[in-house]
Amino acid sequence: MSMAATDMTAIETTTTDLRVSASNLTGFVCRAFVAAGLPKADAQILADLMVEADLRGSDTHGVIRLPLYVRRLRAGGINAAPNIRVISERDSVALIDGDNGMGHLVMRRAAELAIEKAKATGIGWVGARMSNHAGPAALYVTMPLAHDMIGLYFAVGSNNHLPPWGGNESLLGTNPMAVAVPAMEEPAIVLDMAPTVAAYGKVRLKAQRGESMPVGWMIDREGKPLTDPKRADEGHLMPIGDYKGYGLSLVIGILAGALNDAALGRQVIDFVKEPGKATNTGQAIAALSIDAFMPANEFKRAVDDVVRDIRDSRRLPGVERIRLPGEKSHATRLERGQLGIPVPKTLRDSLDVVARELAIAPLE
Amino acid sequence: MSMAATDMTAIETTTTDLRVSASNLTGFVCRAFVAAGLPKADAQILADLMVEADLRGSDTHGVIRLPLYVRRLRAGGINAAPNIRVISERDSVALIDGDNGMGHLVMRRAAELAIEKAKATGIGWVGARMSNHAGPAALYVTMPLAHDMIGLYFAVGSNNHLPPWGGNESLLGTNPMAVAVPAMEEPAIVLDMAPTVAAYGKVRLKAQRGESMPVGWMIDREGKPLTDPKRADEGHLMPIGDYKGYGLSLVIGILAGALNDAALGRQVIDFVKEPGKATNTGQAIAALSIDAFMPANEFKRAVDDVVRDIRDSRRLPGVERIRLPGEKSHATRLERGQLGIPVPKTLRDSLDVVARELAIAPLE
Repeated sequence: MSMAATDMTAIETTTTDLRVSASNLTGFVCRAFVAAGLPKADAQILADLMVEADLRGSDTHGVIRLPLYVRRLRAGGINAAPNIRVISERDSVALIDGDNGMGHLVMRRAAELAIEKAKATGIGWVGARMSNHAGPAALYVTMPLAHDMIGLYFAVGSNNHLPPWGGNESLLGTNPMAVAVPAMEEPAIVLDMAPTVAAYGKVRLKAQRGESMPVGWMIDREGKPLTDPKRADEGHLMPIGDYKGYGLSLVIGILAGALNDAALGRQVIDFVKEPGKATNTGQAIAALSIDAFMPANEFKRAVDDVVRDIRDSRRLPGVERIRLPGEKSHATRLERGQLGIPVPKTLRDSLDVVARELAIAPLE
Repeated sequence: MSMAATDMTAIETTTTDLRVSASNLTGFVCRAFVAAGLPKADAQILADLMVEADLRGSDTHGVIRLPLYVRRLRAGGINAAPNIRVISERDSVALIDGDNGMGHLVMRRAAELAIEKAKATGIGWVGARMSNHAGPAALYVTMPLAHDMIGLYFAVGSNNHLPPWGGNESLLGTNPMAVAVPAMEEPAIVLDMAPTVAAYGKVRLKAQRGESMPVGWMIDREGKPLTDPKRADEGHLMPIGDYKGYGLSLVIGILAGALNDAALGRQVIDFVKEPGKATNTGQAIAALSIDAFMPANEFKRAVDDVVRDIRDSRRLPGVERIRLPGEKSHATRLERGQLGIPVPKTLRDSLDVVARELAIAPLE
């Protein structure tokens, strides 16, 4: 059993990929959204968030999704000019209707409102309905950090690949949960995980590469291990911890979906296969003010201590370094901020297609 | 790979065990705590909660723990007459200092306060420090249900059995998280899980039975599978989902421990091995008011629909029934409420020892 640290995202980039500066990439994404009918200010917010995902190394959840977003906007599956509004509100809780706008715009608004409420009452919890795919959870769950708050995030996945335990129908999504915790000198702890052994993006990557999948990623309809990624449509992802991952996916789906009157289970629309249909995606974010418990600096020093105790603890044979959740993203953020974002040829080609379709200047 | 539903707790009871009524067992536990120096009212609350754990089938976290609790009370490791008090408070958040009292008393108080705050502001989050082992999370996380609220619960485990991913020191606990969601006609969804493949109690049970453990439960100090439960002290529990379970344990530990200035990591006292030492156990509970999002009845009907969609979905070959989290506990609660609680001979013997030590009437 290999104990080496494992990446949370599929890495499609290689060391030979050309690098593009964040500002160039942001400019291109912004042009694309404006051409697709979005207001300039919204296009800028979206471009900043999507490129931030790439800077953090979330290669499967950043700019790579632009062609799909544009396809959905042009097909009427996403509203380019939504009226994002609060439809239910208490002192510490709110529900936002995203009016089928881009999920990034909805969840940025939700995070800001959660932070505002946490300042006033110690905690803010904001749910969203009629939202859309919003990129990686890390974008939003880290927003409370600058306010000396802990972030929590839950989302309903954009398609169902996970059956209930013992089931043979993928009724649940790879519903992610995320928790972000600020530290003083150490990078923030950012856990951003789906309750499945493998992300579906990793399955697609194996298929592209012509590689087989390890036993344990997927099962077929007989319940037997499925290792051929080209047959992925015939099978199901496996949950982590067997029935536990199924239970996690379910309760995350309820917190992010059912509670917000957003889609869950049979209601979920596959956002790739049905580009013209509203997904009614649900997400939820909470911000928890550390000052309500103890002075924030004292807490952050305690987190530093925990991080260092873990990193410096005894390692198994062959393990070079014990990693903390979020550590790799933090390092990638620094590296790519300096050297630019690797853009593999397949990604550049797909962005060139978007540029032609929208009649905008291509990525430099 | 077996897809049959798996129990979350080790079952030590058998069909031939004598059954004891809940009221008899409650009476005995109450007598024991009074004899150990607790006020009568506190003893009654504790007895009710501990027997409720047994009624729900949490055999490893209910009355079986009485001898340990009494040992710790007599050794001065738990305070029999604590001044449990709120030491920090905002409109929607509070921190309780348990004054090293029994964890059940601390977390019942925390749950009540979280519910009160959720009534006023939509959500209440209450952390506890200087608490103790409080039995199964399900006892507290279900308290908000009667108020049409969702419950969330996080706790630091009472000893460290889990290393960081790649690590060779058990710096983390089997820190549980729990979520409870009310339904209309269906039993509530109650997920109560530790981020390890197996609970440590299951390892002990395998040792008692002279059985070996499946590969995947534990590893030894070489990182190799450990299957002999008698060698458990030489090894580590494995997290679910590899690095994901490690990350979950860490962030649960931060929410329940570090944020409350309670023990985490190297600070954790093994509550079995050091009966005279305060553990400074940390827990946290949140209550989320459904009415802040939508009418509670509408939500509960939606949960019924999700539950039924899942239960009635296609099953893998050989699977008789798809279970929902909490379904089995609910059924056990009904059955044991009627027929009484199975008390195996080993448990009865240990309760008899407690009775003699405390000079109280034994369990009838």
